[in-house]
Amino acid sequence: MIERTLFNADHEAFRDSFRRFMDNEIAPHHEAWEEQGYVNREVWRKAGQNGFLCMTMPEAYGGSGADKLYSVIQMEELARGGFSGIGYGLHNEIVAPYILHYGTEAQKAKYLPLFATGEMVGAIAMSEPAAGSDLQGVKTTALKQADGSYLLNGSKTFITNGWHADLVIVVAKTNPAAGGKGTSLFLLEAGTPGFEKGKRLKKLGLKAQDTSELFFDNVKLAPEQLLGGEAQENRGFICLMEQLPWERLQIAIGAVSAAQAAIDWTVDYVKERKVFGTTVGAMQNTRYKLAEMQTEVQVARVFVDKCCELIVKDQLDTATASMAKYWCSDLQCKVMDECVQLFGGYGYMWEYPITRAYADARVQRIYGGTNEIMKEVISRSMGLGGR
Amino acid sequence: MIERTLFNADHEAFRDSFRRFMDNEIAPHHEAWEEQGYVNREVWRKAGQNGFLCMTMPEAYGGSGADKLYSVIQMEELARGGFSGIGYGLHNEIVAPYILHYGTEAQKAKYLPLFATGEMVGAIAMSEPAAGSDLQGVKTTALKQADGSYLLNGSKTFITNGWHADLVIVVAKTNPAAGGKGTSLFLLEAGTPGFEKGKRLKKLGLKAQDTSELFFDNVKLAPEQLLGGEAQENRGFICLMEQLPWERLQIAIGAVSAAQAAIDWTVDYVKERKVFGTTVGAMQNTRYKLAEMQTEVQVARVFVDKCCELIVKDQLDTATASMAKYWCSDLQCKVMDECVQLFGGYGYMWEYPITRAYADARVQRIYGGTNEIMKEVISRSMGLGGR
Amino acid sequence: MIERTLFNADHEAFRDSFRRFMDNEIAPHHEAWEEQGYVNREVWRKAGQNGFLCMTMPEAYGGSGADKLYSVIQMEELARGGFSGIGYGLHNEIVAPYILHYGTEAQKAKYLPLFATGEMVGAIAMSEPAAGSDLQGVKTTALKQADGSYLLNGSKTFITNGWHADLVIVVAKTNPAAGGKGTSLFLLEAGTPGFEKGKRLKKLGLKAQDTSELFFDNVKLAPEQLLGGEAQENRGFICLMEQLPWERLQIAIGAVSAAQAAIDWTVDYVKERKVFGTTVGAMQNTRYKLAEMQTEVQVARVFVDKCCELIVKDQLDTATASMAKYWCSDLQCKVMDECVQLFGGYGYMWEYPITRAYADARVQRIYGGTNEIMKEVISRSMGLGGR
Amino acid sequence: MIERTLFNADHEAFRDSFRRFMDNEIAPHHEAWEEQGYVNREVWRKAGQNGFLCMTMPEAYGGSGADKLYSVIQMEELARGGFSGIGYGLHNEIVAPYILHYGTEAQKAKYLPLFATGEMVGAIAMSEPAAGSDLQGVKTTALKQADGSYLLNGSKTFITNGWHADLVIVVAKTNPAAGGKGTSLFLLEAGTPGFEKGKRLKKLGLKAQDTSELFFDNVKLAPEQLLGGEAQENRGFICLMEQLPWERLQIAIGAVSAAQAAIDWTVDYVKERKVFGTTVGAMQNTRYKLAEMQTEVQVARVFVDKCCELIVKDQLDTATASMAKYWCSDLQCKVMDECVQLFGGYGYMWEYPITRAYADARVQRIYGGTNEIMKEVISRSMGLGGR
Repeated sequence: MIERTLFNADHEAFRDSFRRFMDNEIAPHHEAWEEQGYVNREVWRKAGQNGFLCMTMPEAYGGSGADKLYSVIQMEELARGGFSGIGYGLHNEIVAPYILHYGTEAQKAKYLPLFATGEMVGAIAMSEPAAGSDLQGVKTTALKQADGSYLLNGSKTFITNGWHADLVIVVAKTNPAAGGKGTSLFLLEAGTPGFEKGKRLKKLGLKAQDTSELFFDNVKLAPEQLLGGEAQENRGFICLMEQLPWERLQIAIGAVSAAQAAIDWTVDYVKERKVFGTTVGAMQNTRYKLAEMQTEVQVARVFVDKCCELIVKDQLDTATASMAKYWCSDLQCKVMDECVQLFGGYGYMWEYPITRAYADARVQRIYGGTNEIMKEVISRSMGLGGR
Repeated sequence: MIERTLFNADHEAFRDSFRRFMDNEIAPHHEAWEEQGYVNREVWRKAGQNGFLCMTMPEAYGGSGADKLYSVIQMEELARGGFSGIGYGLHNEIVAPYILHYGTEAQKAKYLPLFATGEMVGAIAMSEPAAGSDLQGVKTTALKQADGSYLLNGSKTFITNGWHADLVIVVAKTNPAAGGKGTSLFLLEAGTPGFEKGKRLKKLGLKAQDTSELFFDNVKLAPEQLLGGEAQENRGFICLMEQLPWERLQIAIGAVSAAQAAIDWTVDYVKERKVFGTTVGAMQNTRYKLAEMQTEVQVARVFVDKCCELIVKDQLDTATASMAKYWCSDLQCKVMDECVQLFGGYGYMWEYPITRAYADARVQRIYGGTNEIMKEVISRSMGLGGR
Repeated sequence: MIERTLFNADHEAFRDSFRRFMDNEIAPHHEAWEEQGYVNREVWRKAGQNGFLCMTMPEAYGGSGADKLYSVIQMEELARGGFSGIGYGLHNEIVAPYILHYGTEAQKAKYLPLFATGEMVGAIAMSEPAAGSDLQGVKTTALKQADGSYLLNGSKTFITNGWHADLVIVVAKTNPAAGGKGTSLFLLEAGTPGFEKGKRLKKLGLKAQDTSELFFDNVKLAPEQLLGGEAQENRGFICLMEQLPWERLQIAIGAVSAAQAAIDWTVDYVKERKVFGTTVGAMQNTRYKLAEMQTEVQVARVFVDKCCELIVKDQLDTATASMAKYWCSDLQCKVMDECVQLFGGYGYMWEYPITRAYADARVQRIYGGTNEIMKEVISRSMGLGGR
Repeated sequence: MIERTLFNADHEAFRDSFRRFMDNEIAPHHEAWEEQGYVNREVWRKAGQNGFLCMTMPEAYGGSGADKLYSVIQMEELARGGFSGIGYGLHNEIVAPYILHYGTEAQKAKYLPLFATGEMVGAIAMSEPAAGSDLQGVKTTALKQADGSYLLNGSKTFITNGWHADLVIVVAKTNPAAGGKGTSLFLLEAGTPGFEKGKRLKKLGLKAQDTSELFFDNVKLAPEQLLGGEAQENRGFICLMEQLPWERLQIAIGAVSAAQAAIDWTVDYVKERKVFGTTVGAMQNTRYKLAEMQTEVQVARVFVDKCCELIVKDQLDTATASMAKYWCSDLQCKVMDECVQLFGGYGYMWEYPITRAYADARVQRIYGGTNEIMKEVISRSMGLGGR
């Protein structure tokens, strides 16, 4: 095994601290949250109280001004534990950064402190029933009215944190005729008239994650709800593109951590499990499968750590991040599948972590841009023209 | 596509009839049964009333004296519909045949007619917490007592139909010192003192299937409960081996039918689904993936149909059946995985049949002997010595 | 293993007879022919003398009037022996059938008897340097002159039997403006002025196969050289399409036979080969790999035998034949690759048949339409529109 | 793409210089050397004159005292160019290091300067006809005689540089009863009585590489020929084990470089190649395949660069090096296979570099310890006990 050099002692102290938090505040409840289909709101507030929200936001807005590696550690730990209901990552490292990078001073001052305490939970609404990964195909519109306000109509689906969300960044067309170039981002609070949350979607896995549909029926948006104000009108697609490297890398980070955890569980299991007068772990097939998995996860870890080094220096390009997203999520699913097999019948029983990890993993190849989209991006970076 | 030649007009009429039954009696309820974790008992009795139980049992015992192809059709249809909660296959073509082939006249006369009407549901208890696919490692014992009775102790797990079961064939060691050669099969009715059913196991898929644990605590078994009576004492392992080809082929039959259904759903979906200004189905990646899947499923279907021809003539050897089991279940999982991907986000939503088919498929590579066991069997048939 | 039912006793007698021919006339020389880059012409004449050419042509034209299964057997045996230099298959079952199906009576009477004796060797010239599998992109032209003759210009490459060929069926555009619909087939004898054979192409494998380039520089073609005469002018593309199922199935037949031979060699080798105090064949990894390979080759054999049944009845459609071509050639390469690995260092030494079989196999996924083209064809048959 | 940070400006200057050397002294001749089956001896002497041999040996022994990264660059460049006949890597970084690390002062002073000038070519003789990757199974013996000399008997095979070699390090049992612990290394010069070189082995690829058999018939070895003298007697196995990380990493370095070159050639080709009215490179299947390949090669490069960083610091463990060897050589073969396919018929023609690269690649999964052996090593490092 290759010793990791990504983190310093402060990072590792944070890891220890977050592990304790997970052990106390998440682990004892996660199974119940899976049953009910969402985590208790309390776990958001407690995270805020303990400094586990918005670590990378400036202190002026309630954050800790920490580097992204703290968030990397948080993502790794949640993935390792299989706590897929906890939507801190999206809140901290996708939604909050949009506000920080593109918001007006007033928007930042209003929302980021509430994000940091967990009083507000954030979500971002991109996917639509008819569009999926195709952001240019967004049908939701926010048309400017005579009074300067916008009228929001449309619907979104597959929205992580959607049911808990107090603030949703909504991707909408302000100039539908202009395609991607007519896209803007809006800040929409729960409870606004015309904004309805649909049912929580029942999924293969991510059972405690409150993925939801959102509906907008003539929602009136004040000009102040346009993220970044007038300067950012119709610049939404560009904003979305700029954040892609970090967003995609986050999926890869979780993938590698979850895969390593699965290997560790499986190694422990096969060493104990006896069949046909020996242990499963003594069989050559088992040993080779695990050696193959560990090799690929080790290789992936070195790659993702390198990407983390680059993102911290703001040097990670979209094509490389797309490689990380696609390849690590494919690997995660492959590892989960083979580990399930090595667990035999127990690998199919919901009470086993490996089973839930298998179910959770499958969506990683789909969300954040399907892996097919990643290959489009990568091939374009190679000068191979597509559609 | 290659036209199938396996079935005659009577078979196809049976298929139509069973499809109507499924449409009326199963399809409207299956989702609710998934929620509750078991099918309603009524669907067993209705199947009996309509001639959908024990078709291949002799008429003398309440069956229809039909050939195995009727059961093949039933399995195909249930798999195609995704009605994985319905345990007719196990009841009709695994449990009942043990009674028919090895039971005493009294046992056949007592149980088979009740199986045919659905008044009794059958199960077979092989797997144990510590043994899995290793039948020689069975720890449950049925030790002969001075009075000629046997005392059954031990526990079983992963028992399909276990919670509904009125009659369980229990695999137990009557001579523990003799390994596989000391194995016998017993007929155990629900309600017998000392026989407890454990909880229904929560699984990744097969949500309406009442898979259960069974516990035996000093259960007293009369000599008449030894399947086949004294003549079969300690011959249980041989009986189990003799039934393997047909049991394994059944898994392959379901696998191919489920995989073809998944392809059909996916072709329909991708033709409609629009992204990036075209349909998903017009993209070369989609077309090649589906062409690859359809090729392999077509190849598998021809192979399985050939195996069905052979089983009807009682000419299917265990190694070939093991090939069918392992290869078709691997294929099924591969197809489900790729179809889920082509469905995008919807492929992860529980309400979509493809998602449930994905979850249901995963166990096929594990039960009925893991696919690793199949490779042991196949390699031995090639003269390659193992452990 | 599943017993084959495709052949009757006469077929098997033919197999024995052809095996003896191979043992006497091919096996002792093939290595030398690989060195020189082409087989001796003698082996064509001897095949003719012994009834191994044009078995399926009518007796009236010197053939035996046999069914295609005799040719299937010949292909299987040549593939099994690794005698990839012997181009009988192309001659007997691709070139001769064009003459039989589309030729005028005079053309049939002139050429087929010479094909049957081996006095003439046939080839077909489709591929061009700039076109490959894209028959519509053929650049070679045969433009009608004022005197009714055609003037042939262009070049072809990758022509099997090209260097030996006495008669070449040339695919050329008679109406270049009409695309595929302006294609015709011509019969061109070696030695015709303006027709030059280029060098024999040095290849990864198929070392004894005289694959060549052909050049046409103002070759004057009489009207009688148009295959089928005027009635077939501009119908060449249709003729080519009609023959595809049988041509593609031939590749699959060779693929399965070669793959089975490789498995057989490897099983023999690993049983003997000792390492680390045991045999390679006793290791679980070896056993599982061989079990997987044997399973897939068994499955492929049943499928190809079914396709053979259909082709004999003229019922094999192009999409199914394309499935057989693509899937079996992929499988062949996979099997060769894994068998090479099991042979260790010897698998890389040219003197070992497995090494040559590995090298020979690779082209099967490319010629006869690349496997990508096959997926185009299959996906279209599924109603998935492409480019 | 991720910018590499492994090399400094001096390294890159060396790369430029070696590229010029390759362009002038290797590239124009390599095809002819493939034809004849070995490189001209001159290319060894010229390398010596230009400082391209023994760069990492101390200046005192004629080397340049350079770090290993200079050798890494040389390996990368040779692999990139497909100059597989050039055995500098083995000579510089496998054979010479044994002398440096384990040799006596007299041995170092005698041989290393001749290695550095190219006057002597080195080889190491491990593999035997009956042993392959199993070093403990070595049958060659060097039994101590009454006069203190050793009598060497046995044979070796697959010896790289074997035909050119002036000095061969021979792995032999000095204490056959002690298994691996009775192994010693001897320095044997060409021309010694009883030492015969067999034929150059004809291989699938590596056509210009003089791989040979070696025979020892009562070769008398003076005590001074024992590498390291008496202190190292019976320590040969330990020496061999100590060198494994660097030796295995070398295979990975070549694998990644060759794979990247193949991708580059293929991208160039598919952008130009027209079929069906477009370019091959515009097709989605092509773009996705190349995106997948480029992703994996990028991932592999980051991993191998990390391993290079570690080896320079002497911190690379054997299990990690085994991961690099197995995974990168598997990847290399996968990439070559897919690139061949994208080249269509040309990918099968020997004159195309991709074809030769395909043939060259295949042995990488076999030599240097088969990839199966790598998995043994890796699984043991995970605490999974084996045979």
